[in-house]
Amino acid sequence: MSSTAAPARLSSAAARVPSSTIRQLLSVTRSHDVLSLAGGIPDPALLPTDEVRSALAEVGRRTDALQYGPTQGEPELRAWIAEHELGGADPDRIVITQGAQQALSLVVDALVDPGDDVVVEGPTYVGMLQPLRRAGAVLHQVPVDRDGLGTLELAQRLRSGLRPALVYIVPTHQNPTGAVMSEVRRTQLGRLAAAHRVVVVDDDPYRRLGGPAPSRLRDHVPDELAVTVGSFSKIVAPGLRVGWLHGPDWLVDAVLRLKQSNDLHSGALTQLAVAQLVARDGWLDEHADRLTSIYRARAAALVDALRSDMGDRVRVDEPRGGMFAWATFDAHIGDTDLLARCALEEGVAFVPSSAFDPSGRPGHSARLGFATLAPDDLRRAARRLARAVRRRTSTVVAASSPTR
Amino acid sequence: MSSTAAPARLSSAAARVPSSTIRQLLSVTRSHDVLSLAGGIPDPALLPTDEVRSALAEVGRRTDALQYGPTQGEPELRAWIAEHELGGADPDRIVITQGAQQALSLVVDALVDPGDDVVVEGPTYVGMLQPLRRAGAVLHQVPVDRDGLGTLELAQRLRSGLRPALVYIVPTHQNPTGAVMSEVRRTQLGRLAAAHRVVVVDDDPYRRLGGPAPSRLRDHVPDELAVTVGSFSKIVAPGLRVGWLHGPDWLVDAVLRLKQSNDLHSGALTQLAVAQLVARDGWLDEHADRLTSIYRARAAALVDALRSDMGDRVRVDEPRGGMFAWATFDAHIGDTDLLARCALEEGVAFVPSSAFDPSGRPGHSARLGFATLAPDDLRRAARRLARAVRRRTSTVVAASSPTR
Repeated sequence: MSSTAAPARLSSAAARVPSSTIRQLLSVTRSHDVLSLAGGIPDPALLPTDEVRSALAEVGRRTDALQYGPTQGEPELRAWIAEHELGGADPDRIVITQGAQQALSLVVDALVDPGDDVVVEGPTYVGMLQPLRRAGAVLHQVPVDRDGLGTLELAQRLRSGLRPALVYIVPTHQNPTGAVMSEVRRTQLGRLAAAHRVVVVDDDPYRRLGGPAPSRLRDHVPDELAVTVGSFSKIVAPGLRVGWLHGPDWLVDAVLRLKQSNDLHSGALTQLAVAQLVARDGWLDEHADRLTSIYRARAAALVDALRSDMGDRVRVDEPRGGMFAWATFDAHIGDTDLLARCALEEGVAFVPSSAFDPSGRPGHSARLGFATLAPDDLRRAARRLARAVRRRTSTVVAASSPTR
Repeated sequence: MSSTAAPARLSSAAARVPSSTIRQLLSVTRSHDVLSLAGGIPDPALLPTDEVRSALAEVGRRTDALQYGPTQGEPELRAWIAEHELGGADPDRIVITQGAQQALSLVVDALVDPGDDVVVEGPTYVGMLQPLRRAGAVLHQVPVDRDGLGTLELAQRLRSGLRPALVYIVPTHQNPTGAVMSEVRRTQLGRLAAAHRVVVVDDDPYRRLGGPAPSRLRDHVPDELAVTVGSFSKIVAPGLRVGWLHGPDWLVDAVLRLKQSNDLHSGALTQLAVAQLVARDGWLDEHADRLTSIYRARAAALVDALRSDMGDRVRVDEPRGGMFAWATFDAHIGDTDLLARCALEEGVAFVPSSAFDPSGRPGHSARLGFATLAPDDLRRAARRLARAVRRRTSTVVAASSPTR
């Protein structure tokens, strides 16, 4: 019997949630001879495979590593996060999640009903758009510039009566722009949250990937309104699926009930392996420093090549860390949805800015991920992209030529 | 600043989802000198710790085990499930989940809107009540007897116009009653599903824990309406959090979008370790047979002791497999919520039937989990329970005595 027809009705949440455009794009790029700037994943060659294996072998002796565990997560990992990631916090206000994605999804489920307003950055992390759409949020974008979220514009919107269920931001090495929010703006955001009683969700997975870290948003936002989300995916390994959130008791209580109903708890084995690994004296700092210096060299190689190959047809700032550069192309070449198709024919993939816009509107920018390619491949990718830009330029000129 | 006040509004889903009464009870029993019949977990001493460790060491060499992976799950594990758990199925209709709990939660999210009717067994698995309540389902219980779900009563309700978004059942070694649905009833349920176009969710984690398995519900229910949920938690190890679902394309598509928005994907490492382990020739069958014979001996010890210690004050059938016996006590002793408190004072814990009733109504039955205690401890637990029953009998008699 055929199983393609839908003989029953889907829920409204299922009807609302879209598929990830980036995940669709990634599956295309894997099947071609393509240099991919589309991903936001760590370089597989830099994953600490041996260290993870030995940590697993160690904790695998423990019966509790294979048994049902607490919904909130393993106490030893929560204690480590409280001390080392949050500079002193209450471990009972931390929940271990399936990567940062589950932390974001749970916070959305705890706070957002259909029709609720939510503020996100413009452009924003595409992975957060999925749970927000599933929840039926009405999305308001506040533009990001080199200093992060525009707090002046946010202040105006709040003063005009906007009452968002939450403000979601990636303040450090933002996905997708690479922007780092300035200290002044962090302070301003904290004041706005206090004045208007708004929950601020600080999604901070790239914090360790670039020089001295800025202050935490939780140092500025009132305690009962501050949510911090973190992850070991970018620094240790994504496949372990270990992320976390820290928040006020009232929210943690709701998140725990939701997580219990979603998946009971996260696996003890991988949590204990991460706890074992990060407890090794100095290992994490050393590993993060190594990743940072390698990724920075790659960022520099890409940005230099883009500038020298394309001149004033592209505007791109060198990222201070993280995994992404944000390139804005000359408006004459048309939007980056069209450029992306042309680039794929030239053998290079990237994510156009439309993916990071809740309305999906085509724009002139692109996210270029530099973490997985060596400098030579990045220079090759820049050359291919330059060829695509030249092709687009001539196409657009021809199309707008008066002889046609 | 205090973080206990709730300065922002929770979503209606968060307001609806309760905490698990069983998980609350378990945290109490761990902190006392209590023999626990309350859990539904494998005996830690029987977990295949060495085998899991060697599988992890093997797959831990693979970079893809630590990298981001497909939302649907690792192809080699899906292929194994399709062949060995489903007796031939399309791996593309299988999704790997964080234990069976996430499979159930995703199916609920895909199909149920607030106010939708859902049919569950009476009594039913308490872990399914959480996602159903979160989703705002209106629950209808159809009683279970020794032959499983009462299909005659279900037929009547469907004929009277009930149109449930889904029918949820644990047909084999049911949680909590241990009942095995008869083949006749399986056929009848399939016919009802076909006639009334109802999705049937077959939750089947105990299938390998007891003699020759009955037919699958998917052999009776129309293909486009049949969902099967499975788990490696009871046979391999819960801490790996590897479960799965198989369903029609229209549902799998929605489940994948929801899972992507929830947690991107499940960890590749633990999936590959399970795939590696179950691929060992004969290992799984041998291990499951060993568990079955040990658990059966425990069930027999418990049931014999209950009968000899309590005589006609208790009615309990010997389970054919699984992890649970269902005991119904003489109505004279009062409900099992009261008995449970009295039993805890005597040093034995169990889950009263109210936990498995969506209305939470106290009843006269109890779920007795026998998997984690050795026969001697089970006999000791039965003696303690008998003492509690005697105390309740005298209390109830005294309270209803005409001299008072």
